[in-house]
Amino acid sequence: MMIVMKPGATQAQLDHVLEHIHANSLTPHLSVGEDHTVIGAVGDTHAIAIELFEVLDGVAAVKRISQPFKLASRTLQPFDSVFPINGLSVGGEEILLVAGPCSVESRSQLLETAQAVKEAGANALRGGIFKPRTSPYSFQGLGEQGLELIAEARALTGLPLVVEITSINQVEVLSKNVDVLQVGARNMQNFALLSEVGRTQMPVLLKRGMSATIEELLMAAEYILAGGNPRVILCERGIRTFETATRNTTDINAVPVLKSLTHLPVLLDPSHSTGHWEYVGAVARAAVAAGADGLIVEVHPDPEHALSDGRQSLRPEKFAELVRQVGQIAGVMGRKLTPVTKL
Amino acid sequence: MMIVMKPGATQAQLDHVLEHIHANSLTPHLSVGEDHTVIGAVGDTHAIAIELFEVLDGVAAVKRISQPFKLASRTLQPFDSVFPINGLSVGGEEILLVAGPCSVESRSQLLETAQAVKEAGANALRGGIFKPRTSPYSFQGLGEQGLELIAEARALTGLPLVVEITSINQVEVLSKNVDVLQVGARNMQNFALLSEVGRTQMPVLLKRGMSATIEELLMAAEYILAGGNPRVILCERGIRTFETATRNTTDINAVPVLKSLTHLPVLLDPSHSTGHWEYVGAVARAAVAAGADGLIVEVHPDPEHALSDGRQSLRPEKFAELVRQVGQIAGVMGRKLTPVTKL
Amino acid sequence: MMIVMKPGATQAQLDHVLEHIHANSLTPHLSVGEDHTVIGAVGDTHAIAIELFEVLDGVAAVKRISQPFKLASRTLQPFDSVFPINGLSVGGEEILLVAGPCSVESRSQLLETAQAVKEAGANALRGGIFKPRTSPYSFQGLGEQGLELIAEARALTGLPLVVEITSINQVEVLSKNVDVLQVGARNMQNFALLSEVGRTQMPVLLKRGMSATIEELLMAAEYILAGGNPRVILCERGIRTFETATRNTTDINAVPVLKSLTHLPVLLDPSHSTGHWEYVGAVARAAVAAGADGLIVEVHPDPEHALSDGRQSLRPEKFAELVRQVGQIAGVMGRKLTPVTKL
Amino acid sequence: MMIVMKPGATQAQLDHVLEHIHANSLTPHLSVGEDHTVIGAVGDTHAIAIELFEVLDGVAAVKRISQPFKLASRTLQPFDSVFPINGLSVGGEEILLVAGPCSVESRSQLLETAQAVKEAGANALRGGIFKPRTSPYSFQGLGEQGLELIAEARALTGLPLVVEITSINQVEVLSKNVDVLQVGARNMQNFALLSEVGRTQMPVLLKRGMSATIEELLMAAEYILAGGNPRVILCERGIRTFETATRNTTDINAVPVLKSLTHLPVLLDPSHSTGHWEYVGAVARAAVAAGADGLIVEVHPDPEHALSDGRQSLRPEKFAELVRQVGQIAGVMGRKLTPVTKL
Repeated sequence: MMIVMKPGATQAQLDHVLEHIHANSLTPHLSVGEDHTVIGAVGDTHAIAIELFEVLDGVAAVKRISQPFKLASRTLQPFDSVFPINGLSVGGEEILLVAGPCSVESRSQLLETAQAVKEAGANALRGGIFKPRTSPYSFQGLGEQGLELIAEARALTGLPLVVEITSINQVEVLSKNVDVLQVGARNMQNFALLSEVGRTQMPVLLKRGMSATIEELLMAAEYILAGGNPRVILCERGIRTFETATRNTTDINAVPVLKSLTHLPVLLDPSHSTGHWEYVGAVARAAVAAGADGLIVEVHPDPEHALSDGRQSLRPEKFAELVRQVGQIAGVMGRKLTPVTKL
Repeated sequence: MMIVMKPGATQAQLDHVLEHIHANSLTPHLSVGEDHTVIGAVGDTHAIAIELFEVLDGVAAVKRISQPFKLASRTLQPFDSVFPINGLSVGGEEILLVAGPCSVESRSQLLETAQAVKEAGANALRGGIFKPRTSPYSFQGLGEQGLELIAEARALTGLPLVVEITSINQVEVLSKNVDVLQVGARNMQNFALLSEVGRTQMPVLLKRGMSATIEELLMAAEYILAGGNPRVILCERGIRTFETATRNTTDINAVPVLKSLTHLPVLLDPSHSTGHWEYVGAVARAAVAAGADGLIVEVHPDPEHALSDGRQSLRPEKFAELVRQVGQIAGVMGRKLTPVTKL
Repeated sequence: MMIVMKPGATQAQLDHVLEHIHANSLTPHLSVGEDHTVIGAVGDTHAIAIELFEVLDGVAAVKRISQPFKLASRTLQPFDSVFPINGLSVGGEEILLVAGPCSVESRSQLLETAQAVKEAGANALRGGIFKPRTSPYSFQGLGEQGLELIAEARALTGLPLVVEITSINQVEVLSKNVDVLQVGARNMQNFALLSEVGRTQMPVLLKRGMSATIEELLMAAEYILAGGNPRVILCERGIRTFETATRNTTDINAVPVLKSLTHLPVLLDPSHSTGHWEYVGAVARAAVAAGADGLIVEVHPDPEHALSDGRQSLRPEKFAELVRQVGQIAGVMGRKLTPVTKL
Repeated sequence: MMIVMKPGATQAQLDHVLEHIHANSLTPHLSVGEDHTVIGAVGDTHAIAIELFEVLDGVAAVKRISQPFKLASRTLQPFDSVFPINGLSVGGEEILLVAGPCSVESRSQLLETAQAVKEAGANALRGGIFKPRTSPYSFQGLGEQGLELIAEARALTGLPLVVEITSINQVEVLSKNVDVLQVGARNMQNFALLSEVGRTQMPVLLKRGMSATIEELLMAAEYILAGGNPRVILCERGIRTFETATRNTTDINAVPVLKSLTHLPVLLDPSHSTGHWEYVGAVARAAVAAGADGLIVEVHPDPEHALSDGRQSLRPEKFAELVRQVGQIAGVMGRKLTPVTKL
């Protein structure tokens, strides 16, 4: 941590800063310049809020030099985290393909989609039963009534289930019934929820908030890791910008940036990051070319009648085409698609 | 709702759209142009997701014409909502001043600040005991241990308490102990929490999410209103943009825009919207000049030792100066500050 | 400038950085920590690009501590710049009100507006004859044919003219015919144009680019100042964000931030920063309450028939109301409106 | 164009809107709903500013249905534009690779880089002699003194030259000496410059402004096309967002969106869109996987001593690796790299 004193800061102010540094078990290193005195505060700083120093009298600016996350960092763990999801693995050489409807709507819709995405090459099934919706008047998901349906879909296809959790009181029931807990973009900084899923040993698919920085995404992951759960999968799903031609702006840079900063697996969701099924294939290919460890894609057998996100859902045949293309890109990257689960 | 068909859309596609319109209890009005056929779908559309129409074959675009919120709108209620907060009122002629520390840290810090902000002219006391923090390693608030302290501060000063709620399992205890539940920016789309506070009759201070549009803020309010709780106070607290000179960008436009769209009271938080105490006074004056119904300001007797947000906290004497200036601006606006509570 | 070396940087890499520091006439100060060595490079750094150090082997990060602008800074000149505009002055105690149509469209439109804004209290007349338009098919302004009209308007009312310059080949003709050259948001980083107006002694109204940071605005001003022209007036006109309820987002924070960083006068344009005439009054009041030195407002006698920006233009009677309100706010701020020019 | 009247709009207001529609040679189609009357205005609307209708009394909103660009659109020309650049072609099956230094700095730097990028597989050489720089104190390029150097580099390697133009008075000299005029991000809405290059027949590489929407980029292209120059190459180079981990945010969505809206070739600049050479390869692969027609990449033989953009410049050997990877991705896409020019 570098603490830059204001021009004209007094010795008393400097001493006061030095006391704070010692009080935080850090070691100070002074650099006295013509205009500015700069103090390097050295030690384990990841858990120290820089604002505690910014407010001291005579301080002009404080710059963090080391990363504020630790468990998520490659500094702590240089090699990639690879962990199992009900027989599959994520984070290794293989590219994971999660697919399915935005919401579970009915038995036939879910089972039909589950079969179709499996045939097309998906490795895991997504499908929300608790849906966070902007409007209180929109379809909010089937809730616990959907549990039986997803269990049936898993039994039928053997695909592990990735299901969104929207409240701390769903942890128990979902942990028993699904394979991966998804924390959605709107809950990325719902710290009560992060802490709660951190107390489980369930794999967690953590989506980036729509205006979260990459560092904030890693700090959200840190909440889960610090709770004792090492199974965190990060997911870029587009950020909010001024551009309105697409629903969000896919931050493709985030893929190599995350892969360089963290050992955690990185997925990309081209459905939400574009919002238009026409662009999903192009962005899915781009994601794998940029180094993503997998994709999560919305597929619906009849997007016209989807109760949510129909606009960005692929028909199964389009998804099958995406799988073929992505498989070829994976080959160029020296990787391969995760083999389809056999029952 | 306007549904624009693609050039070359077939009669079958058109008929299919018309069926959907009827199925949603709307009445279609056709306008056949050279390139495009446009269908106006008329009726009570606020509860209908436009995406249900966007996915139909042959549809080029769907534009919502009426607002997607209803209970929050001036269309439903043209006059300003005014409601009581433990003896005060918000939303009327008087400007409400909420002040206090970011976090409750200790008995002496809280009581000292409470007395100081009251003397300086504050009408209500803020102070978090459950703190949403970006880092799991930062101070997370005193939790329920802080309840006694805030009760003592209220008893001492007579100031109503505005306290942030961060989880659905705090609703009961906070409803008993505080006067206003604050839903913070990071939880603005925590729909489980919105629904839960919507089931109470507690006044709710709802802060705008850092990348939420004004419409999304109103939709979040709609969740609370639709739950049966009409006591929602909106709060602009700065949005996230590319500018880094300040912590957030105060969206001052939001004040007149909200006042024109909704009957709910509108506060502004110049502490978070700037992030630097030096700019808080200027933005506080601007807020009242733009038509805000009140302010929520961070004040700390000793910002140097604040455990959070010290950088943006005013010392009590600076806050007293702000109150004087804001009072004069209120006068120009034909309003006045809420008189200070007497015990 | 602080240069942070990577953990494990070699002595050779360090020496190489030190050479660069000396080569730039700076003095290095070393601070050797456990993980990182940090070098403070002290001296006149405003003209040194930090990227020259970022690329050196072994360097982890470079942080600029002093400001990259010099002539525009309060460090160089602590007191406010005040300078004359054809008999008026800007930057002092008085609030300057510039008003007029977006574009000069016809003799009657211009003269009628000029008279009306003068009667309502404007001190200077705006009106574009070269218009930067998003579409090549939109009205592009009268061009040099408009020169006679604006000359007539000035003669009739005595109001100084503020006219946009869009190309380096207009410098000569505009310098002869107008009182203030306006550099628009889209040209804020048209460095050829900035350099050219920097070679004149004309007052320049420099509008912030729609995605320019405050620092970039000051660097654009620095181009003009470094060219030898000290008469720069800055103008906040709204920035581009994700919010679509208004045309731009007024960055009201920019007013106190600019006033603290620079001695140059700061105006605000509530017409462009909101895009809707209904919100112009509220934001104009907010600007003056936040400390702006003046306003530039679009006024049109018949917004319905304006060839550009009618949506955000005030009718003269609404502008007169704005002047009254802003005058009262100015009073609270210990300032007053610039008296209306007498012929 | 859809014009939505306010609830309660009068017949006179409606008639007035209808007059305007006729005056613009459009045909109105009325749709009378319960709350709103909606008028479809049908005809050639691309050249009509919707603001002309927004300001009419009684109008609630105006929605453009057709695109505001025409010459750039696939509606006008469904097939891809392919055009020659000094013996090469752009926009067809082959992927174009432009590479070279940010700025031309010296004879040895330029010639060495030119040879190296050619050997590595580049098809064209970039290198600025007029540099738009944020600071007036930064290196501004060699100016016309650089012309001889770039001529020598072209003669030596046979690579066509892509050189930035920053002012209308450079059109003549650059048109004679280079093969492609580059209009940089900061000048994307310098309409005087767009018009001027539109009067030439030179290929123009038009970079997206850092906060320009995709539609605004296409409108900027439309200026050049409308001037009579059909040779426009679009270039995504990253947009400005809140994310600070990278210099800009690569809008990878823009690639498929542009390819669907326009027939013009689309390049991507991974150097500026990331700002860190470490991420350039990943984003270059992503661009081609998403459907880009080529890349423009900064390469410097000695980034440590680059006078600008060293941080994001690849060393020639890293560029050669990028070329190999991109070539494989091109193969998956059914395309191939443009063969290297032979002298």
